Amino acid sequence: MKYAVLGTGMVGHTLATKLATLGHEVRMGARTETNEKAQAWAEAHGPNAGSGTFADVAAWADRVIFAVNGAMILDVADAVGASAVLGKTVIDVTNPLDLSQGMPPTLIPELSNTTSAAEALQARLPGANVVKTLNTMNHLIMVDPGRVPGNHDVFLCGEDEAAKADVLAMLREFGWTDPIDLGPLAAARGTEGMMPFWLRLWGAVGNADFNYRIVRA
Amino acid sequence: MKYAVLGTGMVGHTLATKLATLGHEVRMGARTETNEKAQAWAEAHGPNAGSGTFADVAAWADRVIFAVNGAMILDVADAVGASAVLGKTVIDVTNPLDLSQGMPPTLIPELSNTTSAAEALQARLPGANVVKTLNTMNHLIMVDPGRVPGNHDVFLCGEDEAAKADVLAMLREFGWTDPIDLGPLAAARGTEGMMPFWLRLWGAVGNADFNYRIVRA
Repeated sequence: MKYAVLGTGMVGHTLATKLATLGHEVRMGARTETNEKAQAWAEAHGPNAGSGTFADVAAWADRVIFAVNGAMILDVADAVGASAVLGKTVIDVTNPLDLSQGMPPTLIPELSNTTSAAEALQARLPGANVVKTLNTMNHLIMVDPGRVPGNHDVFLCGEDEAAKADVLAMLREFGWTDPIDLGPLAAARGTEGMMPFWLRLWGAVGNADFNYRIVRA
Repeated sequence: MKYAVLGTGMVGHTLATKLATLGHEVRMGARTETNEKAQAWAEAHGPNAGSGTFADVAAWADRVIFAVNGAMILDVADAVGASAVLGKTVIDVTNPLDLSQGMPPTLIPELSNTTSAAEALQARLPGANVVKTLNTMNHLIMVDPGRVPGNHDVFLCGEDEAAKADVLAMLREFGWTDPIDLGPLAAARGTEGMMPFWLRLWGAVGNADFNYRIVRA
């Protein structure tokens, strides 16, 4: 598959590198074509790796991953443009955190509670099939669930069943054997709303190598 | 110990009955002294069980549990009055859900994200020592963790270490071997913010007999 990974931070790097390692063609997207981090990543990852603007890599790709700062998600959606992702599976792994007031962050009111970053993204890219996933854990665990021993869970939600099947396939390639489908995209209000709890757990556990397991009767 | 359980719903009944079964003196509090549910509960649970107004049972008790509708928490705090709980451990198990717009509910903006029901309760009862706990699971699991097999977790947070020790002791009586202390009361923003996720999981799992396990590396 051809994956565009939008975002040059730790999450973008981790996802892009894993996808390239799995044999996919991957292009890392940034605001400018000459973004140094994106170019350096592409140069380091062989002939199937590339970089470009958000719009160019999204237009090129089969699947588009939003791995940007949650506060920037709609700006990046506008930079991509709805036509570039028409009918494509768009994978949103962001969290709508307001980091402007220091730690711990709060949720951005316009992107939480009665809506979500994922729903706002879907509204901005109406022809895309947005699926929310992977936003409830540290980026290293996203692509390497075995980093935390035993069973633990990843969640996904979205409106389009074919797009969810695409994401399930990607998650299984990452090593997730049994992702939990939470239903419609509005369930992202729930998973995005867990980040304040996750940040407190980070403090209590002392490191980010933990994840949630839903234990059932 | 003498426990006041404020609230006559399922959560209040479950907690009051468990505490009475454990040998504690328990009084169920309601808005009026003649509340039929509270009186019926007291009559059914022997000489160590009683009922009364929110204010009367809180003034009588050593420990006071808020198990009311989250939207009502500050009204009930006002009915109790700060002097009735001065220096006492106040245990808040509520969730600030706005159920007025149908299912699934959202969080009440004035009691979430940049604050929490627990912090608002503490501000309204400044001489009390508020501890948040048990609000992340179905009420039956609160007092019977064995209902869900294997290891899973309960969380607590608060400002006062002695009050947290009281709550840890209560949780251990309920069967929780290793509660996770998330630190200050502001961590309740995190645990209260999980309820929208919990409600989606309820749909995905198909019943309420599940709980979170924090799996660590």
